Amino acid sequence: MKIAVDAMGGDHAPAVVVEGAIAAAHELPYEIVLVGAQDSLEEHLSRHKGVPKTISVYHAPESIGMNESPALSIRKKRNASINVAVRLAQEKKVEAVVSAGNTGAFVCAATLYLRLLPGIERAGIGVLFPTLKGMTLLIDAGANIDAKPSHLCQYGIMGDAFYRYILGCENPKVGLLNVGEEDAKGTDFIKETYKLLEDAAVKFVGNVEGHDLFRGECEVIVCDGFAGNVALKVSESLAETMGLFLKTELSKGLLNRLGALLSFSAFRALREKMDYAEYGGAPLLGIDGTCIICHGSSSGKAIKNAIRLAGYFINRGVNTHILEALHRH
Amino acid sequence: MKIAVDAMGGDHAPAVVVEGAIAAAHELPYEIVLVGAQDSLEEHLSRHKGVPKTISVYHAPESIGMNESPALSIRKKRNASINVAVRLAQEKKVEAVVSAGNTGAFVCAATLYLRLLPGIERAGIGVLFPTLKGMTLLIDAGANIDAKPSHLCQYGIMGDAFYRYILGCENPKVGLLNVGEEDAKGTDFIKETYKLLEDAAVKFVGNVEGHDLFRGECEVIVCDGFAGNVALKVSESLAETMGLFLKTELSKGLLNRLGALLSFSAFRALREKMDYAEYGGAPLLGIDGTCIICHGSSSGKAIKNAIRLAGYFINRGVNTHILEALHRH
Repeated sequence: MKIAVDAMGGDHAPAVVVEGAIAAAHELPYEIVLVGAQDSLEEHLSRHKGVPKTISVYHAPESIGMNESPALSIRKKRNASINVAVRLAQEKKVEAVVSAGNTGAFVCAATLYLRLLPGIERAGIGVLFPTLKGMTLLIDAGANIDAKPSHLCQYGIMGDAFYRYILGCENPKVGLLNVGEEDAKGTDFIKETYKLLEDAAVKFVGNVEGHDLFRGECEVIVCDGFAGNVALKVSESLAETMGLFLKTELSKGLLNRLGALLSFSAFRALREKMDYAEYGGAPLLGIDGTCIICHGSSSGKAIKNAIRLAGYFINRGVNTHILEALHRH
Repeated sequence: MKIAVDAMGGDHAPAVVVEGAIAAAHELPYEIVLVGAQDSLEEHLSRHKGVPKTISVYHAPESIGMNESPALSIRKKRNASINVAVRLAQEKKVEAVVSAGNTGAFVCAATLYLRLLPGIERAGIGVLFPTLKGMTLLIDAGANIDAKPSHLCQYGIMGDAFYRYILGCENPKVGLLNVGEEDAKGTDFIKETYKLLEDAAVKFVGNVEGHDLFRGECEVIVCDGFAGNVALKVSESLAETMGLFLKTELSKGLLNRLGALLSFSAFRALREKMDYAEYGGAPLLGIDGTCIICHGSSSGKAIKNAIRLAGYFINRGVNTHILEALHRH
């Protein structure tokens, strides 16, 4: 299996992307194609010893900044690493694409070059959140901010397939993100989505609230890309703020510092629990191909785990299962 | 000044509401009217020694459950504590209302009996979030889930007035919650709101993201009630989950337990920072009156601080300042 990695995407590219790709090549039986500026990538690779032969470089002369307009970048920077990587998948030269670059540009390129799965109306980003009980998949975390009820219903079906075959859960519960749990709550948009999900071939458990994201009462939570993006970013920011605040407090005075030292393993466990790098990237569901989106500030470990997730996605036939579920629907 | 407190509202009512009201009466120069089932309230009051004479009881025979439909409860339970408390304000017998009960019912009763301030199109709930730098007011946290751009623009103006006069900030920065920081991001709804806020008499700093809520880069963040409700509930749930997880880890093994004991003051500081009880309740802005909404699971301390906030709201003339700002607008 060949996986293309956008080597120029992310806050710490290409250094950490190269590092993550090398780690993946050591652990995983995949061929990895680093897509980006050839000279720079070869220079970065030369800094590492014993680079596996399963890593190669594919030249792409341009790259897209994190804040560039996705629509413009796809037209004006045809040879940017993310566009080139996705076209390699379109031409069947690779089977999956991993990128920590501009998310909007990745979604645009994937939709344009790889197209949506037959019957799917919009792609959605699925993000895994750690909960008290395990993991919850939130879909959509921001691919589609002008969503329709039918899109959200399909997110439920796709989220079910991903959770079922990647996380190995026989009958994942699917909830609809709302402002209250009662059936009659929410906007007309939400009420219409509710009806569609009731008829979908998923274990729909009705409305859930923001509270439920980290309580782990249901495995898949469906929402529009605007609300999902807010939920994702607010969570990241709060976890970071609480961590920083606690760190500051624990550095005050000898007792606190000594206590923190003794409790080191507890803090490490919390950090690991909250660290998205442990979970790899987020699947872009609904694309006729395999696209894994990584956080902009991904570490090498996050890149490695995203490559691993891309392999699972293909080997476990997530897209085939989505198509079967759509068929039943 | 007389303040009505819905004594039957909240998960631990009436016990903690009575407790909070007594604490407030000891500390603050206000008359407090506990509204609810007379017998029960008198019995609860009799459990406390030295109840200040500034506390009285006003009988309301019914109460509204946390999950009852707001629209129904206002028609079918005219004599529920929250409705009676708001009517006391309508009849000018009290100057403010505090409730930890059903938020939707409170918003409905306030809008129906007290009406909106002249020129205001919708009320919005403002919630204060602790940040690394101080506090950020998010408005709307869920009063109005079918919002229009003009509502959000008015939230900016009202949030500015509240922050300016309650938190004493000369020129609070106002941001619009979006999925990216660039001007061109977001739905048509957001783009229209952006234009309105540019022309409003507030220090509009443009789009902000979910990340910015806890970073404290701007003092007021405006959003529709759906996104705001998700942001609020996701935050509460994450803070709770991280706390529970850390507690569990810190109880594993002697070293962790000893460390936690030594670092006790750091954990207490974090808990205080994240504890909404410290900040009192959330103002319902836009109502021609003073309404403070408390969290359903409010402690006595939260009730006390909400009563204090109601006093500030009146003494500092927040509504007068809102009307002046609307006039300038």
